Amino acid sequence: MRNVKVAAVQMSCLGTVEENIKKADSLVREASSNGANIILLSELFERQYFCQERRYEYYDYAKSLEENDAVNHFKKVSKELGVVLPISFYEKDGNVLYNSIAIIDATGEVLGVYRKTHIPDDHFYQEKFYFTPGDTGFKVWNTKFGKIGVGICWDQWFPETARAMALLGAELLFFPTAIGSEPILEVDSSAHWRRAMQGHAASNLMPVIAANRIGKEEVIPCKENGMQSSSLEFYGSSFITDNTGEIIESAGKSEEVILYASFDLDALMEDRLSWGIFRDRRPEMYIMK
Amino acid sequence: MRNVKVAAVQMSCLGTVEENIKKADSLVREASSNGANIILLSELFERQYFCQERRYEYYDYAKSLEENDAVNHFKKVSKELGVVLPISFYEKDGNVLYNSIAIIDATGEVLGVYRKTHIPDDHFYQEKFYFTPGDTGFKVWNTKFGKIGVGICWDQWFPETARAMALLGAELLFFPTAIGSEPILEVDSSAHWRRAMQGHAASNLMPVIAANRIGKEEVIPCKENGMQSSSLEFYGSSFITDNTGEIIESAGKSEEVILYASFDLDALMEDRLSWGIFRDRRPEMYIMK
Repeated sequence: MRNVKVAAVQMSCLGTVEENIKKADSLVREASSNGANIILLSELFERQYFCQERRYEYYDYAKSLEENDAVNHFKKVSKELGVVLPISFYEKDGNVLYNSIAIIDATGEVLGVYRKTHIPDDHFYQEKFYFTPGDTGFKVWNTKFGKIGVGICWDQWFPETARAMALLGAELLFFPTAIGSEPILEVDSSAHWRRAMQGHAASNLMPVIAANRIGKEEVIPCKENGMQSSSLEFYGSSFITDNTGEIIESAGKSEEVILYASFDLDALMEDRLSWGIFRDRRPEMYIMK
Repeated sequence: MRNVKVAAVQMSCLGTVEENIKKADSLVREASSNGANIILLSELFERQYFCQERRYEYYDYAKSLEENDAVNHFKKVSKELGVVLPISFYEKDGNVLYNSIAIIDATGEVLGVYRKTHIPDDHFYQEKFYFTPGDTGFKVWNTKFGKIGVGICWDQWFPETARAMALLGAELLFFPTAIGSEPILEVDSSAHWRRAMQGHAASNLMPVIAANRIGKEEVIPCKENGMQSSSLEFYGSSFITDNTGEIIESAGKSEEVILYASFDLDALMEDRLSWGIFRDRRPEMYIMK
């Protein structure tokens, strides 16, 4: 029996890095005081979602792993509280900028960095302007509380992400994200978004933990960069599934909340083996294009 | 605008091939009279599910494509009604036996055969005794009513199946199946089963049509081949999703019923492109093992 308690933090993001780190800090402490061992904050929580518009000056937000404020802050918090913290940040590696996540083990040690593999590009998600597609490949992390895989936002739409992490031995799948309304397409994709990840849980026989931000974030409309006058409203809806893809913890669209769930990783492994999915795969027949 | 109406037939299977073909014939005619263009019957509907027990004499059920009763019968029906019919059958190809499906176009012509890639093996699903894992690879079929992909039963649990067919250009994904209670594992997997396929629809932005059988099928308990005294109860729950994985048509666990849904394949393609999933894949980063 290897029990782990996970938490997904759903919060809005304020105007400054300092305010957001302070807010996240307080929520991480609350989750830890409620017994959480692995605590997931949402994507790029240090700032409002700057990818709504294309501005060269925002490139300055990118810092190396060693220089990022959130990573440095939460290394200390992790060590103090003994919790695992995947920390999303805008990474600068020489001339190249990535959408990255540092995995901080319960000792405060950074186990490494995963760089977002799939980069979206739409009117309000102009990420191809800011981020080079990641070069690390999918990774799993042998933390104090279990082997975890972490994908970032758009990665969550690709079954390849979840399967790759499962094949590398992941026991739990985490997805920090920043997703909201689609002002152009005029759809609320929240249920669709959940079903894609419920499918990853169902097909890989392991829990999925997803943390999204909430809140409407205004930008100044600017004709030159193709912006419309409306702005993104992030739809929360963070959730945790069991190993059959059933949603067992669910957040609303606008509440600040922490979700919790406990799992026995040994029991999950036993279930996974009894199901036979990984036994019966036939990689030689799969299409790679 | 390219409209297509699909149907999923949920039925119980009777004692003889003749009875089952007659029953399926009547349901196919009913679906066609209600305007269906592509009609999905469930897996191996010619017989009760013989894979519950291991008996050498059941190898005799396997026939070549040319000799199979259901395929020969429904080639005529397809031509008469002008409908597309994927027909599941136990196939003999020289010394090798497969769990196969013949895709009959609306003209009565067999476009080809797909052989089930993933073969399960459990106390009541002893398919590795009967079927060699398929050698055809995943396929899509350019039918009169659109480009369709067909996976067979256990294939439905693997995201690779759906993704492969989507990458080959499928517009609709069909899954004939035979799944029911798990007398040993003591779980009702029907919701889990649905979520796995809802995930395929959500991640590939295309409808999934699944047809399962219903009914309890008794077998004579036999200590020598490891059988217990209980028998499988097939749980129906056939369904059709939209292109976000939402279930739009749903059958109960024990009713004989035909589900219908209509889709505009051009509108679905437009949606798929606007979503950007296939644009942003990165096959060079995917793990194949």
